[in-house]
Amino acid sequence: MNKNFYAVIMAGGIGSRFWPMSRTETPKQFIDILGTGESLIRQTFLRLNKICPAENIFVVTSEQYQLLTLEHLPELKPSNVLCEPVRRNTAPCIAYANYKILTKNPDAQVIVAPSDHIILKEDVFINVATEALNESGKHDCLITLGITPSRPDTGYGYIQIDEDSNEKLNDKILKVKTFTEKPNFEMATFFLKSGDFVWNSGIFIWSAKSIQRAFQKYLPEIDELFAKGKSMYDTSLEKEFIEKTYYICKSISIDYGVMEKADNVFVYQTDFGWSDLGTWVSLFDNSNRDENNNACIGSEILTYDTENSVIVSHNKNKLVVIQGLNDVIVVDEGDVLLICNKNNEQKIKDIVDDVKQKYNEKYI
Amino acid sequence: MNKNFYAVIMAGGIGSRFWPMSRTETPKQFIDILGTGESLIRQTFLRLNKICPAENIFVVTSEQYQLLTLEHLPELKPSNVLCEPVRRNTAPCIAYANYKILTKNPDAQVIVAPSDHIILKEDVFINVATEALNESGKHDCLITLGITPSRPDTGYGYIQIDEDSNEKLNDKILKVKTFTEKPNFEMATFFLKSGDFVWNSGIFIWSAKSIQRAFQKYLPEIDELFAKGKSMYDTSLEKEFIEKTYYICKSISIDYGVMEKADNVFVYQTDFGWSDLGTWVSLFDNSNRDENNNACIGSEILTYDTENSVIVSHNKNKLVVIQGLNDVIVVDEGDVLLICNKNNEQKIKDIVDDVKQKYNEKYI
Repeated sequence: MNKNFYAVIMAGGIGSRFWPMSRTETPKQFIDILGTGESLIRQTFLRLNKICPAENIFVVTSEQYQLLTLEHLPELKPSNVLCEPVRRNTAPCIAYANYKILTKNPDAQVIVAPSDHIILKEDVFINVATEALNESGKHDCLITLGITPSRPDTGYGYIQIDEDSNEKLNDKILKVKTFTEKPNFEMATFFLKSGDFVWNSGIFIWSAKSIQRAFQKYLPEIDELFAKGKSMYDTSLEKEFIEKTYYICKSISIDYGVMEKADNVFVYQTDFGWSDLGTWVSLFDNSNRDENNNACIGSEILTYDTENSVIVSHNKNKLVVIQGLNDVIVVDEGDVLLICNKNNEQKIKDIVDDVKQKYNEKYI
Repeated sequence: MNKNFYAVIMAGGIGSRFWPMSRTETPKQFIDILGTGESLIRQTFLRLNKICPAENIFVVTSEQYQLLTLEHLPELKPSNVLCEPVRRNTAPCIAYANYKILTKNPDAQVIVAPSDHIILKEDVFINVATEALNESGKHDCLITLGITPSRPDTGYGYIQIDEDSNEKLNDKILKVKTFTEKPNFEMATFFLKSGDFVWNSGIFIWSAKSIQRAFQKYLPEIDELFAKGKSMYDTSLEKEFIEKTYYICKSISIDYGVMEKADNVFVYQTDFGWSDLGTWVSLFDNSNRDENNNACIGSEILTYDTENSVIVSHNKNKLVVIQGLNDVIVVDEGDVLLICNKNNEQKIKDIVDDVKQKYNEKYI
């Protein structure tokens, strides 16, 4: 394994679109959401550990999840869990981890990945990631992994490939023309037809030096904040420094702050059975279905005259019976039962907001 | 209060159409199903106690529910709870209670009522029942209370009034022409239009002597069985006698065994806001509904874009959220969650049978 290969797992999210299974106390990444026997963060760690040694893998998460992270990843040194005192989106998270890595190894080549996605074709992923990591050592570039879209999904961001550009790292790693936000259905259909667009997986590969240069150029105030800590990383002063830094640091995503602006961004178009498992419908899409096209996840679930539904219940002592309903999401999880029309699942976010208003943090 | 007035509360049912709220361990009559603060059996007892003294009220139930009955009705002497060792439908239940009452008071006038119905207009009920009880002391007759139907309900039995008969007890208590089973929708619509039909409430009023004579005539084998116990009622031998008698006694309803055959049956047509609360839809019909016509029974229920549904959850620590569904029954009760299309609630019986097959008595 290449000792210059590093990984940063971003694990600070709270997965509110997966409520009520994902809760503030145990968000989505810490749940074995597909029932495979391993939580999503553990799957992510084991996958990346096939590319990088465990001591080169860092997890950035909220202070609240420090112990939970170590429980799920006992192979990890506690010092490799970087704790954010407040949520500040992905750019500060990456800046922090990158300075830590630069301190240890200025020649580091880094893969940055969310903790809560699924990847079904692990072999393909490992080959792709390794190739991109190798390229990142040869060029000053920022590489993102783009997934060949299979449907006009409106839940993903898209990346347009610049097919005409002469700049490319190799035949598969091409220049990016534009990043786009989540499109509406018509736009997504157009993207799919055009063939130039891929899904933005949110997985990035670069050298530590390249991304630091990009921060200097596009987010100089964030770079300056974290550069001030150089003498404090890996010392007893780090914690206090990070506390102060995060509170004054602005909240911004790496996509918006760097990737959409930089002129050395490339995309590796690939397909490794990826899903961000962002929603109940994506869970449905990624689950085994019974003869009536129901995804029944958990135990003791009986369905009658019911189709195209996703039913989740992990309480082994409880029987769930559904009769005469189609296209529903049923999640019976702890102190919340959610029953939602599967065609309206974007409403779950509003419901979570409403529940917060009514009950504060209870049930969230 | 007339000391000759007695009441028999039939409380041996298991309320399987109200599963999963009604369970073998705590059937419907022991549940405060409308959330009024009192179980149905307690409501029934308190209502009848306005007509009869408490010592004249008998409850016939399964041995299994003896203690539960006394918990719900602490005013009752334990010896007034008559325990059935096995379920044998209503005729043996009434024969047993009637012999007990005859032993105490040969001049008893008796009202027999199910334990799990609701009556909204209690004053009307008390007047009607008292008048019928008084009439039962003057004539050798069997009186049943018939409810003026308000809709073509297919869940009830109907009684046809013989409008042409000269036999009548008074202007309100008329001769019965026929009893009918639960009709189909067309038949029920015809019944409603004709004006001759009333709902069979299953509440009966007669003198102890009259119903005993009717047993002698129409169910002589049952009468003989219970007559043999005359010397044993209210002695230490009663329990063993009843055990033996019930096991050899046939199972038959009072309607089929006596009422449909006897020629001295009268019906008091009335309307006291009665429902047998036989099904979830009847619960829905009898509950307060919110502005979207949902009956939300219990605590912490939130509905969004949901109409005409009945949602029952009594767990105070659980939040139930329903989005984008119409005409559903949702019951989250202990170790069972049932979600059923409200238009298919007759399927619940099949579901209960299927659950029994799969899990034996668990969940039932």
